[in-house]
Parts: sequence; structure tokens; C-alpha cells
Amino acid sequence: MATLHHSSFCPHSRFVRLIMAEMGMEPHLVEERPWERREEFLMMNPAGTTPVLVEEGGLAVPGASIIAEYLDETRGLGLSGLRLLPESPAARVEVRRLLDWFLQKFDQEVTGYLVTEKIHKRFMTSQHGGGPPDMNAIRAARSNVRYHLKYIGYLISRRNWLAGSQLTYADLAAAAHLSCVDYLGDVPWDEDEMARNWYARVKSRPSFRSLLTDRVAGMAPADHYADLDF
Amino acid sequence: MATLHHSSFCPHSRFVRLIMAEMGMEPHLVEERPWERREEFLMMNPAGTTPVLVEEGGLAVPGASIIAEYLDETRGLGLSGLRLLPESPAARVEVRRLLDWFLQKFDQEVTGYLVTEKIHKRFMTSQHGGGPPDMNAIRAARSNVRYHLKYIGYLISRRNWLAGSQLTYADLAAAAHLSCVDYLGDVPWDEDEMARNWYARVKSRPSFRSLLTDRVAGMAPADHYADLDF
Repeated sequence: MATLHHSSFCPHSRFVRLIMAEMGMEPHLVEERPWERREEFLMMNPAGTTPVLVEEGGLAVPGASIIAEYLDETRGLGLSGLRLLPESPAARVEVRRLLDWFLQKFDQEVTGYLVTEKIHKRFMTSQHGGGPPDMNAIRAARSNVRYHLKYIGYLISRRNWLAGSQLTYADLAAAAHLSCVDYLGDVPWDEDEMARNWYARVKSRPSFRSLLTDRVAGMAPADHYADLDF
Repeated sequence: MATLHHSSFCPHSRFVRLIMAEMGMEPHLVEERPWERREEFLMMNPAGTTPVLVEEGGLAVPGASIIAEYLDETRGLGLSGLRLLPESPAARVEVRRLLDWFLQKFDQEVTGYLVTEKIHKRFMTSQHGGGPPDMNAIRAARSNVRYHLKYIGYLISRRNWLAGSQLTYADLAAAAHLSCVDYLGDVPWDEDEMARNWYARVKSRPSFRSLLTDRVAGMAPADHYADLDF
């Protein structure tokens, strides 16, 4: 059985949990606090970030987009009709463009700020950067999330799923990031109905269930968080 | 003929120029100033970043790592002995891990600061963020580059090239980033001989030549910049 070193509210870890659930894989989950820089964890991933997938034979695969490529190459062909990274070069470019959009850009402009300031800082010692949240960072993220939501709405007004006619890694990455922001109540869903309907579709998939049961100690999710008809 | 929209001192653009030269491709080059957010350019890449490769048929491929994957899938198999993204799953993981290391981590900790503060700010209007360089950012980058250089030295003490026995995308990405920092004279080469020897090997490849002739208007490179025996 493969092992996934993850952090429950790390959006990149959530993306990989979604991929593996869609592929019918049930990894052994190990919760990491990356800021503690555990030595064994750094041996698996010198960059010190979650997630890291470790195969039964010992191969460590670090980083969400690298794991996504790896799983497509080693498991994806078995999915026939439901390949999460499609076959044609142009379709692969579009999926990877949007993967980058959400794993890098959305993370830098929205999720990174909110998850660090509102969640992880609660569990960090002051030595590791813990302390009260930086309200400027939170305000910036809340402002930025609005144009990303519009962009999702724009894409979904022209396509069935974010990158085209089929569900792909792009949908799972975007939804994984949004799920963290949604836990915190910071997605203004009433501003874009197309985006909301798309998220409701992704959220209703069986692969999403385990994400919706995770809780931050001492911090309840937004009321509608686990509600499939929000 | 393919067109590459690039910026001469954007390290990601330099990486793609190296790949294409190694593959024997000679793209038509179009210099972009991404901060000007030219409308036609944003249509090709809504994220507004360089590089963007445009195929003769019109397909736009945005972003260095996406272009690298695309070129491997559409041209790489033709390289037989010199495939820049090797075949085996474990080797691909290692190349992609190091690609991420240099394209993301090194960029965020070193190149991004230096190129923005010392080069791009000279050409930006104040409206686009131009102005005098932020010395704190430059100091941080100069401090960070030292441990990256050690890491390169550590890898090269155990392997012929960064990711293993063959030249791969990892070497080209790392060298592309270092070439920008080296232009500015900010690589402390005397701190790591292994790293310096590795860089001299990459820099001596014919694919590197065109990078070494680029100049920033009004700013000469470090003395040894174009010297293959520095």
C-alpha cells in the first residue's frame, strides 16, 4: 500500500487525496507539520513541503504536480474513459496550464495566505512563525479570491468542466484549493452562480467525502462546508 | 516555425531557449515586457507571464514547465540518446523534483528578487512598479543563493549531472536561473568548486551561446559572464 505524507488543510495534499480517491487508491495517510522540518521527512523531500507519496517499494514522489504526472504515467492508462490528464497534446497543455494556475497562482494569491494565517499559525510555535494572523494578508486573499471565482465562472460558461468536456486534474486542483478557503467561509459563492454549480458538482463526488469530514482542532467550518446543496 | 514570446533575462524563458537549442529548434523570438500586460499576450497566456511558445498552427503553450512537458511529448522521442526527460518513472520524478526546485524555489528565493530589483525595475514605469531596487530583497537573495550553490555541489559530488548520469531538464533549468544571477555578479562561485565545474560544463554547450550574448541596456555583465573558463 502506498503512503501519503500530507497535511489536512494543505490544498496540495488535498488535491492528491482527490486524485488517489478518483483512481480507487486508498493510501495510508501520515499527517505532517512541514514547519517542524522532521528529519525523516526532509530525506523524502529536501524542499520540506507536503504532500509526498511513498510507494510500497520505497520510491518517494514529492510535490503535488509531480505526483499528478507520476500517477498519470503509472496508473492513469488504467482509467480508460476517465483519464484525468487527457491524451491530446493541446488538451494536456490546457490541463497543465490550469493546474499551474491553481497550484501556483491561486496558492500565492489566496490559499497560501489564508491557510497559513488562519490555520497553520495556530499550531506553530513562535519559533516556527506562529502568532496572531496578519490581517493584511487575509484581506488581500479575500480580495483576490473574487477574480479567481469569476475566472472559474467564465471557463464553466464555455465548457462542461474547467479544462474541457471531461473532469481532469484541473477541476480537482481548483476544488482542493477552494475547499480550504470554503472551510474558512471565505469564498463569496453568491458572486458567481456558474462557479458555485461547478463546485457543487465536484464536491458531490465520492472522492470528496473524506476531505469534508476533516476538522481543524478548535475551529468549526463554515456552516455550508459539508453541505452538498449549499 | 514556432515563435517564443520571451524576456531576455527571464530565467524561465532562458530555460526554454536552452531546451529548444538542445532539440535543434530555432524559434522566432519575440521580446515581451510582461508587466505591460499587452492584450494579445494575455490572450495567449491569461497568467501574463513569460515564456509562451506558439506553434506554427497557432497552439499557445504557456509556462516553462508546461512547455518542457509539451516538447518532451511532441519532440523528445526524436532525441534518442539525449532525451531531456528520461524514460523511467523514478528518473522522471527526480528530474521533475529538481525542475520544481529551480523553477519555483530558487526563483522565489533568489532569481525573482534579483532580476526584478536589479534589471526589470530599470525598465518599468513607476505605475508598473519601477523605481530604485529594494536592497533588503537583494540581500536576501544573495544570502539564499549560497545554500542553493552548496546543494548543486552536493548533487554533483554524487552524480555526473544534477538528476543522474545524463544531462536533463534539471541541468538546463538550474543553469538558466544561475545565468541571470551570474550576469549580475551575484554567484559566489569560489564557495563551491563542484558547482562551478558543473556550470562550466553546461555553459560550454552550443545551446548556451545565444544567452551569453544578450545584454541589459546600460548594464554590463560581470567580467567572467561570457568566459567559458571562468
